[in-house]
Amino acid sequence: MTLEQEILMKISPSEEEREAIGNRARSLVGRVTEEAKGEDLELSVLLVGSVAKDTFLHNPDLDVFILFPESVPRERLESIGLALGRRVLGTGEERYAEHPYIHGIWDGLEVDMVPCYRIDNTSHLKSAVDRTPFHTRYVRSHLKDAQRDEVRLLKQFAKGIGVYGAEAKTQGFSGYLLELLIMRYGTFKGVLEAASAWKRGTVLDLGEGTGRRFDDPLVFHDPVDGNRNVASALSAHSFATFIHAARRYLGGPSERFFFPRRRGMLELEEMKGMLERRGSGVLVIGIERPCLIDDNLYPQVKRSLDGICALLEGQDFRVIDRAFHVAGGIDFVVELESLTLPPGRYHSGPPAWVDNAYAFLERWEKEGLSRPFLERGHWAVIAPRAYTGADELIRSKMSTAALGSDLREAKVLSIAMGPAAICEKNRAALSALLDKRMNWEI
Amino acid sequence: MTLEQEILMKISPSEEEREAIGNRARSLVGRVTEEAKGEDLELSVLLVGSVAKDTFLHNPDLDVFILFPESVPRERLESIGLALGRRVLGTGEERYAEHPYIHGIWDGLEVDMVPCYRIDNTSHLKSAVDRTPFHTRYVRSHLKDAQRDEVRLLKQFAKGIGVYGAEAKTQGFSGYLLELLIMRYGTFKGVLEAASAWKRGTVLDLGEGTGRRFDDPLVFHDPVDGNRNVASALSAHSFATFIHAARRYLGGPSERFFFPRRRGMLELEEMKGMLERRGSGVLVIGIERPCLIDDNLYPQVKRSLDGICALLEGQDFRVIDRAFHVAGGIDFVVELESLTLPPGRYHSGPPAWVDNAYAFLERWEKEGLSRPFLERGHWAVIAPRAYTGADELIRSKMSTAALGSDLREAKVLSIAMGPAAICEKNRAALSALLDKRMNWEI
Repeated sequence: MTLEQEILMKISPSEEEREAIGNRARSLVGRVTEEAKGEDLELSVLLVGSVAKDTFLHNPDLDVFILFPESVPRERLESIGLALGRRVLGTGEERYAEHPYIHGIWDGLEVDMVPCYRIDNTSHLKSAVDRTPFHTRYVRSHLKDAQRDEVRLLKQFAKGIGVYGAEAKTQGFSGYLLELLIMRYGTFKGVLEAASAWKRGTVLDLGEGTGRRFDDPLVFHDPVDGNRNVASALSAHSFATFIHAARRYLGGPSERFFFPRRRGMLELEEMKGMLERRGSGVLVIGIERPCLIDDNLYPQVKRSLDGICALLEGQDFRVIDRAFHVAGGIDFVVELESLTLPPGRYHSGPPAWVDNAYAFLERWEKEGLSRPFLERGHWAVIAPRAYTGADELIRSKMSTAALGSDLREAKVLSIAMGPAAICEKNRAALSALLDKRMNWEI
Repeated sequence: MTLEQEILMKISPSEEEREAIGNRARSLVGRVTEEAKGEDLELSVLLVGSVAKDTFLHNPDLDVFILFPESVPRERLESIGLALGRRVLGTGEERYAEHPYIHGIWDGLEVDMVPCYRIDNTSHLKSAVDRTPFHTRYVRSHLKDAQRDEVRLLKQFAKGIGVYGAEAKTQGFSGYLLELLIMRYGTFKGVLEAASAWKRGTVLDLGEGTGRRFDDPLVFHDPVDGNRNVASALSAHSFATFIHAARRYLGGPSERFFFPRRRGMLELEEMKGMLERRGSGVLVIGIERPCLIDDNLYPQVKRSLDGICALLEGQDFRVIDRAFHVAGGIDFVVELESLTLPPGRYHSGPPAWVDNAYAFLERWEKEGLSRPFLERGHWAVIAPRAYTGADELIRSKMSTAALGSDLREAKVLSIAMGPAAICEKNRAALSALLDKRMNWEI
């Protein structure tokens, strides 16, 4: 038995499981359809997603779309759609992606219930979710039966290496993108072989490619909508990880790519040793985690980490590496060449020939660590640095950093640097910085 | 008596002195003319420079030009010119500016004797020195008698503040440029008032300005040659120093601008304290002084200092300030934010999707201070730094720095940094870095 057959044994739902899931999905759709009849609108209810396409792994989510006529105003669509979902799922939870939907449980399976418009044609699109029924129909009619297991292998591979899912946290490959890749290259192996040779900017399609150009790492023209890149959410990082994993897997296949070991945290002593060998220092900033869904939270966390690094670099600190960790709170870790800087810094002023040059002289004759002096015609001075410690700087100026909007108000819980920052509380965050192993290498 | 009258009392040669100098100049010209008759060429001999223009200070140089017909080949002009000079001045010394000339002593005065072409028109110019007779004639016929003392004041002022002379060491104002400035603005005070408002790129002329554009800090169209900027040798530093000095002098005139106190060296303890307050460190590199005239030496010293700083900055050292000192040897001083850097540095590699990415991985999996990792699609690693000390770096790599060509072979005599560099031997060089006073502030 090949490795891939072994993997399939583990991930592919059995005939019975398929039937049981199918039954649960049908009963859910029946119940929603029943409920929809109560509305004086012509609604249709559609099972979409991996169950509808029979490309699901164990314990799939059920994705049920409620399709509204185009004439219904958006607000009404949302209020009816959410109310309907809540009636069916009981304690359903309202969530927002691009637009609101209800998340809940049906007979032990997680369910997303999403109101959308029933359109004839993707050019009438009002929101990204309106496209989903087209995707489901496309895959159902174009994916060959024998390819469903190839999709499952590819999904599990992407999951194992950490790039499965288009959500902001992962910025990886959506299920639909993986299905299209199988249609494009035929098999799991075919996709990996092709991926080994992908370059940034690779453009793919299923024959319907259009002229629209995208600047994304990978472009896959959506067969149901030529104006869309199915891989638009894919980050360069996930793209690169996939290429690297594909090459490594082809060079030495292993179950680890599909089922990585659990990544534990590194030991504090080990991390201390690593930092000592590099001669660098870490700064760890812990803030409160605001109440946001992941799709809103993660982009802000990434942006905030960039903002913190920019603040440090703007004051001459040199960032070697950075990471973050989201749990009960949010921890930012920045590895710096030096955690402190000398008090004096070269400060460049106006040229001697401008009228306000004297304001510079007056100020710095008093406050400088040198006299002002001329350098290539411009005034300069060795000025005292406002903050010589990275922690001081963050303590005083964090609020001026370019943080994500919802993180700006978050309470700063702790700021520590150097040996003091290497403690149990920060272990997960430090591991995120220092554990550079790929998932399959653990 | 005004300050300027007092200064003039000191610097303006008396009637007797003028006459004595005139006699010595005439006797020299007579002797050269006599000597020139021996050649079978129609040579003429001309006194040029400040004595010819009566704008000289005490102990002027005598500048005697030997004018050759245009038909004489350059080699012949040089050999005859130099031989003639040597015959007149005895142990005359051959020097090279743009072209060779003889330097010697005549009756107690220093003499430059320069062969050049006698041309009708500056458009026939073969070398910059051919222009000098035109300058002398122009000043003699256009400078008013009353302005000669104004020129003297301005020359002494420029000398005092350290910007007199167009030679490479100073990159300041030539005597001719100062004479033109007096003609342009009428008086010493008039020049200073105008200079107070100069901007970088100020363009001046005496009515003959042409269309030719220059990108120099100051432009003065040569009245005898519109294609030349008389201020072309003036550095932004000297230009800025002059503007600043002019403003300061007008705000508070003092003899110090004309006759600055001698700049002594700072005390070692004082300099140690200054560096401690800044938290910075110094690196001092001493090399042999090659046998070059100043006009060739100084540009190379400046270029070499730039090259040394670029070498340091290319390896992540941060230069705060720099200076050099030329005496028996050449000392370069660089003030660094830190004299050492941590062993680990962020090293960026190829993107994951290029074919040679694996060479990077193979190398750094063995040699890295971290595992290679992906960052925005590119490989990166914390790599060990080749040189953690600035002195080590210079010791190993100085020969790869962009040094002046004649300094590349010069023997490195000493490399010291930190407290060890703050010693008597380096005192002059350190003073050049740390003594930021203007000449008139000493």
